[in-house]
Amino acid sequence: MSSIEIGRGKRARTAYSFDDIAVAPSRRTRNPDEVSTEWRIDAYRFDTPILAAPMDSVVSPASAAELSRLGVLAVLNVEGLWTRYADPEPILEQIRHLPEDQAIAELQRLYGAAPVDPELIAQRVGELREGGGTVAVAVSPQHAGALAPAAVAAGTELLVIRGTTVSAEHVSGDGDPLNLKTFIYDLDVPVIVGACSTYQAALHLMRTGAAGVLVGFGGGAAHTTSDVLGIRVPMATAVAEVAEARRDYLDESQGRYVHVIADGSVGSSGDLVKALACGADAAMIGSVFARATDSPGQGVHWGAEAWHPSLPRGERKVLGTVGTLAEILHGPSHTADGSANIVGALRKAMATTGYSDLKEFQRIEVITSPE
Amino acid sequence: MSSIEIGRGKRARTAYSFDDIAVAPSRRTRNPDEVSTEWRIDAYRFDTPILAAPMDSVVSPASAAELSRLGVLAVLNVEGLWTRYADPEPILEQIRHLPEDQAIAELQRLYGAAPVDPELIAQRVGELREGGGTVAVAVSPQHAGALAPAAVAAGTELLVIRGTTVSAEHVSGDGDPLNLKTFIYDLDVPVIVGACSTYQAALHLMRTGAAGVLVGFGGGAAHTTSDVLGIRVPMATAVAEVAEARRDYLDESQGRYVHVIADGSVGSSGDLVKALACGADAAMIGSVFARATDSPGQGVHWGAEAWHPSLPRGERKVLGTVGTLAEILHGPSHTADGSANIVGALRKAMATTGYSDLKEFQRIEVITSPE
Amino acid sequence: MSSIEIGRGKRARTAYSFDDIAVAPSRRTRNPDEVSTEWRIDAYRFDTPILAAPMDSVVSPASAAELSRLGVLAVLNVEGLWTRYADPEPILEQIRHLPEDQAIAELQRLYGAAPVDPELIAQRVGELREGGGTVAVAVSPQHAGALAPAAVAAGTELLVIRGTTVSAEHVSGDGDPLNLKTFIYDLDVPVIVGACSTYQAALHLMRTGAAGVLVGFGGGAAHTTSDVLGIRVPMATAVAEVAEARRDYLDESQGRYVHVIADGSVGSSGDLVKALACGADAAMIGSVFARATDSPGQGVHWGAEAWHPSLPRGERKVLGTVGTLAEILHGPSHTADGSANIVGALRKAMATTGYSDLKEFQRIEVITSPE
Amino acid sequence: MSSIEIGRGKRARTAYSFDDIAVAPSRRTRNPDEVSTEWRIDAYRFDTPILAAPMDSVVSPASAAELSRLGVLAVLNVEGLWTRYADPEPILEQIRHLPEDQAIAELQRLYGAAPVDPELIAQRVGELREGGGTVAVAVSPQHAGALAPAAVAAGTELLVIRGTTVSAEHVSGDGDPLNLKTFIYDLDVPVIVGACSTYQAALHLMRTGAAGVLVGFGGGAAHTTSDVLGIRVPMATAVAEVAEARRDYLDESQGRYVHVIADGSVGSSGDLVKALACGADAAMIGSVFARATDSPGQGVHWGAEAWHPSLPRGERKVLGTVGTLAEILHGPSHTADGSANIVGALRKAMATTGYSDLKEFQRIEVITSPE
Repeated sequence: MSSIEIGRGKRARTAYSFDDIAVAPSRRTRNPDEVSTEWRIDAYRFDTPILAAPMDSVVSPASAAELSRLGVLAVLNVEGLWTRYADPEPILEQIRHLPEDQAIAELQRLYGAAPVDPELIAQRVGELREGGGTVAVAVSPQHAGALAPAAVAAGTELLVIRGTTVSAEHVSGDGDPLNLKTFIYDLDVPVIVGACSTYQAALHLMRTGAAGVLVGFGGGAAHTTSDVLGIRVPMATAVAEVAEARRDYLDESQGRYVHVIADGSVGSSGDLVKALACGADAAMIGSVFARATDSPGQGVHWGAEAWHPSLPRGERKVLGTVGTLAEILHGPSHTADGSANIVGALRKAMATTGYSDLKEFQRIEVITSPE
Repeated sequence: MSSIEIGRGKRARTAYSFDDIAVAPSRRTRNPDEVSTEWRIDAYRFDTPILAAPMDSVVSPASAAELSRLGVLAVLNVEGLWTRYADPEPILEQIRHLPEDQAIAELQRLYGAAPVDPELIAQRVGELREGGGTVAVAVSPQHAGALAPAAVAAGTELLVIRGTTVSAEHVSGDGDPLNLKTFIYDLDVPVIVGACSTYQAALHLMRTGAAGVLVGFGGGAAHTTSDVLGIRVPMATAVAEVAEARRDYLDESQGRYVHVIADGSVGSSGDLVKALACGADAAMIGSVFARATDSPGQGVHWGAEAWHPSLPRGERKVLGTVGTLAEILHGPSHTADGSANIVGALRKAMATTGYSDLKEFQRIEVITSPE
Repeated sequence: MSSIEIGRGKRARTAYSFDDIAVAPSRRTRNPDEVSTEWRIDAYRFDTPILAAPMDSVVSPASAAELSRLGVLAVLNVEGLWTRYADPEPILEQIRHLPEDQAIAELQRLYGAAPVDPELIAQRVGELREGGGTVAVAVSPQHAGALAPAAVAAGTELLVIRGTTVSAEHVSGDGDPLNLKTFIYDLDVPVIVGACSTYQAALHLMRTGAAGVLVGFGGGAAHTTSDVLGIRVPMATAVAEVAEARRDYLDESQGRYVHVIADGSVGSSGDLVKALACGADAAMIGSVFARATDSPGQGVHWGAEAWHPSLPRGERKVLGTVGTLAEILHGPSHTADGSANIVGALRKAMATTGYSDLKEFQRIEVITSPE
Repeated sequence: MSSIEIGRGKRARTAYSFDDIAVAPSRRTRNPDEVSTEWRIDAYRFDTPILAAPMDSVVSPASAAELSRLGVLAVLNVEGLWTRYADPEPILEQIRHLPEDQAIAELQRLYGAAPVDPELIAQRVGELREGGGTVAVAVSPQHAGALAPAAVAAGTELLVIRGTTVSAEHVSGDGDPLNLKTFIYDLDVPVIVGACSTYQAALHLMRTGAAGVLVGFGGGAAHTTSDVLGIRVPMATAVAEVAEARRDYLDESQGRYVHVIADGSVGSSGDLVKALACGADAAMIGSVFARATDSPGQGVHWGAEAWHPSLPRGERKVLGTVGTLAEILHGPSHTADGSANIVGALRKAMATTGYSDLKEFQRIEVITSPE
């Protein structure tokens, strides 16, 4: 990346967000029905390169079943409401109707009042299995050691270890709390881990044996990391950097292809297109699904960072609904803002620019604009 | 164009929109009444370098007659309301008054309810002929084969084949749906085709025998392509690239001058000036005319992308009216926002910068601004 | 200036507005009371480097007297209301209270209803003389030949020829309507002429014998040139370019120092500071004075471009009042937005950065910021 | 820094504000509880690298005691209300409730009505001592000679000389009003002086013997310097430049480490992180503390520049409250905008990026973004 001088003795890299770039048509076009959006990771195959984010506004056992049916890999957060409450529906209802100015404090109270119940983990995994799709759950790096084995024993097929920033080189005075390499090796299921946002961090995560890495900074449409922490991860650059780490690791490992999954800032079908164009194999999506009438959020969206007990870094956002999960994924759409028929839009973008599968599409030309 | 590194392994071209640039005065000035805005394509001559876009809010048989009288090449969409309904006036009335939140769904319903009737095509072409100007109609690339011959047979003098992106190298598993080169060769009338947005795509379109190419991405003031598809075509760069293709093709073809027509983002007289300054021979204008009291839109504007049955990429916009078509083209203007007397404004811009005809004006110095 | 490629075959210069730049403190400071803001042009000396723009909202015979007393060179437009109406006060009153949506049309009507009366020119010049300051009036290049001699005969001491763009190389089929060089040579008074905005145009204007050149594009705070004409003159670059022409012409002419006067975009004391920092000797100010309780505008501002009969390129803006002309120039200020005590602010800016007079201050370091 | 050409003969340095940059995660992470935010200057040690700005909305004897208890170096302005009024509480109350449009004029009246009473300085310093923390007061450069000795005699342990721009090379016709080098040498306490914003100015200030220099332009969240004076000091660049001066002066002085304190534009925990990342040793914070329920401002914020008698350059801003000073510093936070638990946020940012102390953290990688 290009680097500029902020002042004598301090340089900065220039980094680009999805808003800064766009995909450019090339000289060929193609029929949308001859385009494949198929995505495979490990033994699993999906009709779309989309994961539903482990957020309580997005994935419940019920929405996971519907999302799977629609071609999406839905990931349940086993540290959220579904493992804290035997019946979280009244809590979800309450959160959806919280007044704006009390939302964060109430989220802190509602999540803080009930600790994660390991027995509920097993129960929820069972419900996911009954739902019929690939069973995937997410744990935080802090609690992976304690919670993941139970989740796997209950039938989890894909484990996601997801934190704001997960590094394979965590420095700790009292011993490394999670040796990722050993941990992943010992598990019987493929692991997706992240987020990371740089070439180096990604390369180290890939060497832990992960099947995929999340790129981003953990937050979603509702995060406020820049204001709170001063940290910003412009996603176009982050995805491109990690995609390059994937290529280099592929060579270094003599053939292990680690999937790059954009996690954050994918808030419309246009963003999904851009994430893939920057080199992502798939994207983890939150807010887009929270706008479904049949999602747990029902138009209201929040992430784990919003209920951090002492340092919340996200908000509960009232986004409104745009249709069913089926309409959001495959249409028909009745809006023009990239909030529905996102797979149709991806297909159209690929066809319009002349690409037939996602791997090819990663090579598409990108433009940036001064505005 | 300059190219920057988004991240290791991914570069992006920097592209500019009309908003990013402006025309700069030079050292000479000239009298406005000594300036010519004449435009000629094939055997046809127009007082202005302006086409009225084939949109139902802009061109009807009646507005086409008035626009022709005022020096504009009006293009009727023969896949819009006028060929779906024997009397589209009540439908236009209905669309103009749709409540905001139902607009797209209702457009989808109204256009979907009535298929294109080939007999109405002949009738409308007849009405255009009676109107007195150059008879021009637009078809989509998908239906050009089916609809264009009838339109030409009925008296069309100029055919526009207009899609979001039209490529001369369409890749299709079930045989090329439209061999542009053969199709254009076989037609008895000159063809304008597009849109395209890159040097390569334009060069290939020029080689099909087209008299002109549209530059853009099909949408207009109301399009939301960037949100939905992640595709953006900054027009200043696109027009400049295609203008260069025109110069190179002129040499390659030993003298065939293919007209470059900016199609999209021309929302004010200032944008018209900038399009020509970037190298366009003419510009296709939509929203500006939809604001006429005597246009079918009467202040309400929408394009074909707004009524796409499953993936709408545009909105119905309520823009308000600013005057008659005559005032919008030749004044007097009573507004200061570039929405009226657009030919007077072009003439003034040319005079102020010392140019006497449009071909010369393509060489004018352009500036860009960091904001 | 640096130049970027918009697209193959089209380059653009990067140009900067006052908003894009700022003055930077250096390593020295100085006492504000040891700073001089004196400006001299020809035989005339002023306490401030400020001209009041020839706009009916700014300069009347009465406000000119007060402005002169306060150290400003006030310029009366002898093609405005004061030479169209024997008593323009009721018209001014009417304009100040026009409803927003009828403002431009009514301005067109009010100015169009009464032609310029040459006898009133002599009368107004007489009133200016009685007012006591340097007598300065402005004419348009179109009417300079017809109106200027009478104005000079009546006692005008400084003539301003002011149009949107004035070039010394006007190209005209029916003979040059105004040979600037001869015209200026024949006049008995020093002439300020403009606007111009490039090095070349400025150099040519300087060679006509002008005592000063206006830099800009004629409009003021209320102009909309970019929307209407596609023309934009970012002022920081324009002033710097013309200042360089002044240096080169000084050499070429063996010592004729032509004053560079920023005309446009000076809407606050901060902008005044920036104009001088870019190399201007003085600035022509409009909207700032229209906000005085004792200006003709009394908080309402408009320029000649707003009442152009067929192509208005400006608006009538309701800005509100901030104090008397005396407070706006020399304080005390009770606002914090650069709208009052503009000379105190200039003095403070010069002192804070360690400069003692305006000529030195033209060398101050400037910064630009990516936002 | 990189430099661009504004126009022929005028170049500008590109400068960056905190909004233009962000901190980037690196490949390591760390536990937040293993991070140190300790800051030492001269003989004094603080748990946080934070100074409370000498503004009447921020520091009173009472809030100083609480801030000290929480690890902050609170600085009382001995030219503000507390030394003008024996009981300033009713005045503070009045200021908090001033109607918007009269705020500046009333501030001018309330501060102008009562001159600084030297006896009250001694009394307030005594109150600060009773409060229990490090006793620090601020004087302006204009009145340092007259007021500082009394403040020091009464028990001040750290003196801050704070003006918009303080230079060690003040040019004055009537003798230098303050010889900083002699003045600082003669004082018995360490002195922090500023603000400065360039490498050269900082180097000269460091040579006066100051223990620390303030970087900025004196204003805070409510300043409007750019509009009024045309001066802008983008803080990321200013801090980086002065930090480089610190390194060079450390060498030149054979080991005197002068502390660099960011003063201005630190309006959130994210900005604090960025200031330190650019090389600051500490940051002086105003508006963040004015939002405390137990600050004098109680949600209302203003600085000395707002009550300048003739040229105010700041506003009284109603920001609202977000919690107690304890919550603002150490949480828990119930907002997600960087307004509370700012030390927790700093700790989290350092841990997430793998740094264990502030000196190391100055080396962190920084990014900039085109938006």
